[in-house]
Amino acid sequence: MIPRGFSFSAANADIDGTSSPKNDIGLLYCNTKASLCGVFTRNRVKAAPVLIGMDLVKRGVVRAVLANSGNANACTGEAGLDDAKRLMAAVASRLKIDADEVIPLSTGVIGVRLPVDKMLSKLDTLARGLGDNVDTFARSMMTTDTFPKIASRKVGQACILGVAKGSGMIAPDMATTLAIVITDAIMERGDLERTIKDAVRTTFNAITVDGDTSTNDTLIALSSNMLHAELEGVEKAIFEVIQELSMMVVKDGEGASKVVRINVSGCDTDEEARKVGKTVGNSLLVKTALYGSDPNWGRIMAAIGYSGVDIDTGSVSIHISGHPVVERGVEAGGYKEEDVRSALEGKDIHIDISVGSGSGSFTIWTTDLTHKYVDINAEYRS
Amino acid sequence: MIPRGFSFSAANADIDGTSSPKNDIGLLYCNTKASLCGVFTRNRVKAAPVLIGMDLVKRGVVRAVLANSGNANACTGEAGLDDAKRLMAAVASRLKIDADEVIPLSTGVIGVRLPVDKMLSKLDTLARGLGDNVDTFARSMMTTDTFPKIASRKVGQACILGVAKGSGMIAPDMATTLAIVITDAIMERGDLERTIKDAVRTTFNAITVDGDTSTNDTLIALSSNMLHAELEGVEKAIFEVIQELSMMVVKDGEGASKVVRINVSGCDTDEEARKVGKTVGNSLLVKTALYGSDPNWGRIMAAIGYSGVDIDTGSVSIHISGHPVVERGVEAGGYKEEDVRSALEGKDIHIDISVGSGSGSFTIWTTDLTHKYVDINAEYRS
Repeated sequence: MIPRGFSFSAANADIDGTSSPKNDIGLLYCNTKASLCGVFTRNRVKAAPVLIGMDLVKRGVVRAVLANSGNANACTGEAGLDDAKRLMAAVASRLKIDADEVIPLSTGVIGVRLPVDKMLSKLDTLARGLGDNVDTFARSMMTTDTFPKIASRKVGQACILGVAKGSGMIAPDMATTLAIVITDAIMERGDLERTIKDAVRTTFNAITVDGDTSTNDTLIALSSNMLHAELEGVEKAIFEVIQELSMMVVKDGEGASKVVRINVSGCDTDEEARKVGKTVGNSLLVKTALYGSDPNWGRIMAAIGYSGVDIDTGSVSIHISGHPVVERGVEAGGYKEEDVRSALEGKDIHIDISVGSGSGSFTIWTTDLTHKYVDINAEYRS
Repeated sequence: MIPRGFSFSAANADIDGTSSPKNDIGLLYCNTKASLCGVFTRNRVKAAPVLIGMDLVKRGVVRAVLANSGNANACTGEAGLDDAKRLMAAVASRLKIDADEVIPLSTGVIGVRLPVDKMLSKLDTLARGLGDNVDTFARSMMTTDTFPKIASRKVGQACILGVAKGSGMIAPDMATTLAIVITDAIMERGDLERTIKDAVRTTFNAITVDGDTSTNDTLIALSSNMLHAELEGVEKAIFEVIQELSMMVVKDGEGASKVVRINVSGCDTDEEARKVGKTVGNSLLVKTALYGSDPNWGRIMAAIGYSGVDIDTGSVSIHISGHPVVERGVEAGGYKEEDVRSALEGKDIHIDISVGSGSGSFTIWTTDLTHKYVDINAEYRS
């Protein structure tokens, strides 16, 4: 199910120099001028493709996306910008479009120049290979990801398709990780932009794997504007696609063995609830207790307490996967520790935190912190 | 070398119920009214002994410290306050002093009531055992600590002695972990207070192991005011004792295999430099790269970028243990990756970050993040 007007291809340019057989360069092409929106990392250190993408989004029109893994083209200065522009010009010339109709997306190691010549040598393969193989394209963006992330919805005849990559350097309070949403539904660019900004707030910006915000986070949305479809339905479908992709990113969090939904309610504002949820979701002590299936609610209380939100300790209640463990700031009566331990041994954990009687609430998704996380990040240059 | 007027003892009350042979309750006694100052956790969730200690510090006079490990007496509500007060009254009656001349310090698991009767049954042993064995006392406060933390200085005839515990739930931006500094030097309470507050800012508040701020952090300072000593020298000695203790806490960070000093300079203010250093020092990706001896400076750049401080990327330079790896925001020329890798294989790493031409600077101490950290915290209820 591919939105009309779009096609994909992928190739292996050995970008990281390890001679891995994995594809690491991908091309997405639109046979008409697509409208373009995007949200980008709030990290002050912005990769070259992020700086370029932010400019292109102002223009609002795009024909192609050149994505690569194995190299983030970040902290590469002016030379990095020139490298990206050389690639954009070559893609444009190959596809007979304008250079500023090509948006680059990069992910991988920081601080190393792109092997531009290797990448240029694959452009013919990419242009010739354009077709409907979105899976191959999604895989070409993967780094430590263990599965490709693809989601789609139909609204009448129109279609919304999203692909994403992300596994480490995942934290809320950012624009997002690498993600592309495409549709053939006709919609105003303003509507598209509002829809993705709204969606990102409670999806990609509400997930955390390691608390590290990347230099390259980007979510772009493209519409080929080919089919009439009911706007509200399309907006809802775009939201659902983005939400599904963000859940896939958490699920594939580096080394993660569990996905943990943390719902915080009773705050004065949603922003305060977000802050509490983020603090609990990033706490190493909470994340390791979750890994060990230890119902150690004291670590959750401690994290709530240092979240920076002005909380009345005596009003805090905590449920772990439905079991009340804290009531009015102290241990709840009548739950069995063994029941909570069993619940924590599952793959999907829910932590519900209520901190007062306000109407502010927010939901954060996080993972446990495992030995494998340390393996991946101590022994692998990513 | 014990300051005059003070004595110590310790006993085993099996506070955590594991029948471990380790001492877990300690008594410090002063044979005269000692002046008392203290700084306490900024966590909103404050343990019962913290709430009581904050009150006692206002009074400013103390005769005894009752410290225990194995139980934090945190999130125990009114009952927890009553438990602590029962113990204070019993200690006071045993030592023939006032109940509000006894300050309680607790560390261990959160959310469990203190086994008061078990503890009361050891008070005779503690009172009879009072002597100069500060090592035994320091060990009775240990939880996941692997060694007791004791530091001392002489100033003329006067003496400054400090003991601390701390290994996990260690983060800057707090008052401190459990620490006691005692002296026999005569000094105004205002001078003592100013000295410990100044010292904590750049010592205990500048260390991080896991980014988690405890509910029980406390540093208290007691003076028996028995000997005249030169004030400036005493203040310097108190600073050095506190600094030495804080370095021991980092060194003994849970699972840590390396101590990492992060110096940040060139910011507009010291506070901004602290924020940058803290963000780098808490980054899981930086900490795992340090564990793996991987000179992956891109992760340091990314953390600088999301620290929330308004930084000009192009002005950033980074040295790792003396080797320049980043200059003006991009990879520095002329260093050998193998040299940096070798340096990172040591136990003491220095990271020097310069982010501009301002005069604000700060030094943070952190640890690497190891498999053992995950072992300790996934498999041990602390």
